[in-house]
Amino acid sequence: MTTSDKDQVYIFDTTLRDGEQSPGASMTLEEKLQIAEILDDMGVDIIEAGFPIASNGDFEAVSEIAKKSKNSVIAGLARAIHADIDRCGDAVKHAGKGRIHTFVSTSPIHLQFQMNKSEDQVLDIINDTVTRARNLINDVEWSAMDATRTPIEYLCRCVEAAISCGATTINLPDTVGYATPDEYKQMFADVIARVPNSDKAIFSVHCHDDLGLAVANSLAGVAGGARQIECTLNGLGERAGNAALEEVVMAIRTRSDALPYDCQVNPEYLTRASKMVSAASGFAVQYNKAIVGKNAFAHESGIHQDGMLKNAETYEIMRPEDVGVKATSLVMGKHSGRHAFKDKLKELGFELGDNALQEAFRRFKDLADRKKHVYDEDIEALVENEIAVAGETTKVIALTVIAGTGGPQKAILTMDVNGQHITKEATGDGPVDATFNAIKAIVPHEASLQLYQVHAVTEGTDAQAEVSVRLEANGRISTGKGADTDTLVSSARAYVSAMNKLNLRQQASNPGALQAS
Amino acid sequence: MTTSDKDQVYIFDTTLRDGEQSPGASMTLEEKLQIAEILDDMGVDIIEAGFPIASNGDFEAVSEIAKKSKNSVIAGLARAIHADIDRCGDAVKHAGKGRIHTFVSTSPIHLQFQMNKSEDQVLDIINDTVTRARNLINDVEWSAMDATRTPIEYLCRCVEAAISCGATTINLPDTVGYATPDEYKQMFADVIARVPNSDKAIFSVHCHDDLGLAVANSLAGVAGGARQIECTLNGLGERAGNAALEEVVMAIRTRSDALPYDCQVNPEYLTRASKMVSAASGFAVQYNKAIVGKNAFAHESGIHQDGMLKNAETYEIMRPEDVGVKATSLVMGKHSGRHAFKDKLKELGFELGDNALQEAFRRFKDLADRKKHVYDEDIEALVENEIAVAGETTKVIALTVIAGTGGPQKAILTMDVNGQHITKEATGDGPVDATFNAIKAIVPHEASLQLYQVHAVTEGTDAQAEVSVRLEANGRISTGKGADTDTLVSSARAYVSAMNKLNLRQQASNPGALQAS
Repeated sequence: MTTSDKDQVYIFDTTLRDGEQSPGASMTLEEKLQIAEILDDMGVDIIEAGFPIASNGDFEAVSEIAKKSKNSVIAGLARAIHADIDRCGDAVKHAGKGRIHTFVSTSPIHLQFQMNKSEDQVLDIINDTVTRARNLINDVEWSAMDATRTPIEYLCRCVEAAISCGATTINLPDTVGYATPDEYKQMFADVIARVPNSDKAIFSVHCHDDLGLAVANSLAGVAGGARQIECTLNGLGERAGNAALEEVVMAIRTRSDALPYDCQVNPEYLTRASKMVSAASGFAVQYNKAIVGKNAFAHESGIHQDGMLKNAETYEIMRPEDVGVKATSLVMGKHSGRHAFKDKLKELGFELGDNALQEAFRRFKDLADRKKHVYDEDIEALVENEIAVAGETTKVIALTVIAGTGGPQKAILTMDVNGQHITKEATGDGPVDATFNAIKAIVPHEASLQLYQVHAVTEGTDAQAEVSVRLEANGRISTGKGADTDTLVSSARAYVSAMNKLNLRQQASNPGALQAS
Repeated sequence: MTTSDKDQVYIFDTTLRDGEQSPGASMTLEEKLQIAEILDDMGVDIIEAGFPIASNGDFEAVSEIAKKSKNSVIAGLARAIHADIDRCGDAVKHAGKGRIHTFVSTSPIHLQFQMNKSEDQVLDIINDTVTRARNLINDVEWSAMDATRTPIEYLCRCVEAAISCGATTINLPDTVGYATPDEYKQMFADVIARVPNSDKAIFSVHCHDDLGLAVANSLAGVAGGARQIECTLNGLGERAGNAALEEVVMAIRTRSDALPYDCQVNPEYLTRASKMVSAASGFAVQYNKAIVGKNAFAHESGIHQDGMLKNAETYEIMRPEDVGVKATSLVMGKHSGRHAFKDKLKELGFELGDNALQEAFRRFKDLADRKKHVYDEDIEALVENEIAVAGETTKVIALTVIAGTGGPQKAILTMDVNGQHITKEATGDGPVDATFNAIKAIVPHEASLQLYQVHAVTEGTDAQAEVSVRLEANGRISTGKGADTDTLVSSARAYVSAMNKLNLRQQASNPGALQAS
């Protein structure tokens, strides 16, 4: 796989497993498939697609991603339990290249207080479970949970056992996120030096950002001999999250003089992938986030940029376009014709059928009437919304909301339900509540609102508001989006879209099953 | 200042200077004073309060913060220009302990392409400007801009010159944010070893997070011999921002075994300070941000927490309460009386006069009628809003908005303007635009909207929406906030509050002056 004489560092993305495990970051199957596709396209070496035993939804996601995978290895997580490993094997077997990733705790504090097992018992478990995984598939990764708090002698015995039983990747995570770079580097150097069969496996880092050190620790682990980095887009993950894929990748690429490794991820996908994860998880990226934050390449004062631009040949230049940032361009106005609109859609990567194109064009003209400047982002939001609602049998037709200090707020809503127009009126605590109550009056259903989020597509008071709504019913989750210059119309569209997806999915599969523990 | 035999590491906060320099993060004088106060209270050693020459507003902010300072050293920034240094001296002289922080570029790329000066010319500038600053004040910091790209020999000559002329702190920033921890540590070790008078100054780190390494680089610099860390709350700052104060502080405290330094910041203020900066700057903190993110201490699966709780004696425990996270508690409902409400306000740190208390209680009862659960956060938002609008002569009395697909959206607004009720109607692109247009119809004014931000105070569709509005007129900026279960009412309140502040301030001072360059 190496493309030069530098050592290859493999990028293992766990956005869909560790990232999705963040409280509140659940993603739908469609969202996971979309994210897996872009990860595959950008050259991520291994995609950890989920934890198959955790739920039917997780199993389905890993299986589907495995089926659709192109170049990436598709991994699933499994505890050190036969049922977990077997279920994981069933899910990843569909991949061109599948991997079972199994783990067990090795630190004394976990052994004593959580597992109530002796060191020798845990060694037996490692031998047994790695062997079982290896009998199902050739590519097996073993992780020593809480490795950074495990005495080195015992850690080495565990690693040696796992490699002897056929583990091809050994991951030594900083589970609690408290290691320092020096400690983490030393741990890898020590384990690799001491374990006699360490040359038979690739070592892997997995760092959490509790003290803001995840990226530095990941690179330190590589300096200590590791050659796989486990990370997530936007640094998503439990607590303060994992090392951010975009930061790790750009550090290696930008400072290739100090970090002489090869990494085959194409950074031009980073911005788009980051936006996708942020939209799917509902976790916004802060403006000053490295690489993918809105301000990552923005300079207030001219000093810095000026100097950089005058001599763009210096080794450390990282340009916005390297990570796929496109300049916001004023594209079209109310006089733009259908042909220009179609060309613009093509440039933005959309190909619509005739009917969808017609509807999108109608909404574009409508938007251009209401909004002074129509940007690429406006058109993207509009068309994505159009694609999302295509084929839906329940639609928002008209909405009037009366809100303000007088209260209770009132919404009068007309929806198309299977071709029939129904109008109902409802009140609520605030205009959003009233609007959602009107939807419930027209289509009675049981679902709880898990996320309601508004963000402006572009700047200004006349900007379109993009609303995300996440609903949950019977353990199933769906997310809908809507965009309009009127926040309340966006809200209604987003809710209905989420509701439609939920119904479709409930017909298609039977929910239930255990939760990740 | 040291409280033990460990080396003291001084925390230098530059939220109000480097942080405020982020595009879009401008803060008002009131906000800066509030942030400076909490920094002082939490034990930050040095507060960089602004760049006095940049504008009258910056000068005023540094002067006012200097006057009000208690224990912290108050620093101001100055380019290597007499006018800058003198102006800075004028601003910081009001402080119990003031500092002039002057800087000049030292890297060949800056010398050649930006300044068009020779190495010797820059050395002359250092001698001249540090001497000038030192003639004004005893505490002088000198920074070598772009130090990490400066050849070590020349860097050492510059540092030696600055110390000879009386600089007591030497800052070697990683201006472009591309250093690796090993490089940064080595630079400090080399400079300190080579410069003959290096023992006469405290060395300082200043790191940017372009590659996600700011915190690691800061700690590496300290390992190399630096004893001052320049950082910002929430990691605010140009591009990807600076090292986050909360991460640096908690890394040193939590891993005092591996990082044997003393740091006198009281971490219990971190959560409140972070929220303050996020509200003032309009830069939201991402959920998975270390220490101060919503999820920083949240665990999805029971595994980790369980083990940690069972043995809370392990050295690395960092508890939410250590950084001032309070549990959200369900406090009151519609049957709670005035006495209970007053007690709750006291617990939350508010002391209101009789009139304000009566008004706040009225709004609380009104909220309790509309909202199932009233949380501490709801009461805080409500009271903060009440305090903000106290004494304002222009107020929102009643608002009705008619919005929806029918468009144009319409707002009918009644305001109290100097005791007179005025009602006007306006249309707009979306309900927010219509509401703002109605305000402009009642109180005609020229101001541009710089920020419009909505966030839910608590969870659920009946949550109060807190809206921040930032307006700009003639170079002056003001921010207003409003909270209500109806987003449009919050929006109107926030806009009017910002507008009121702008008018007051325009009467009080004369805008103008140059921008930071």
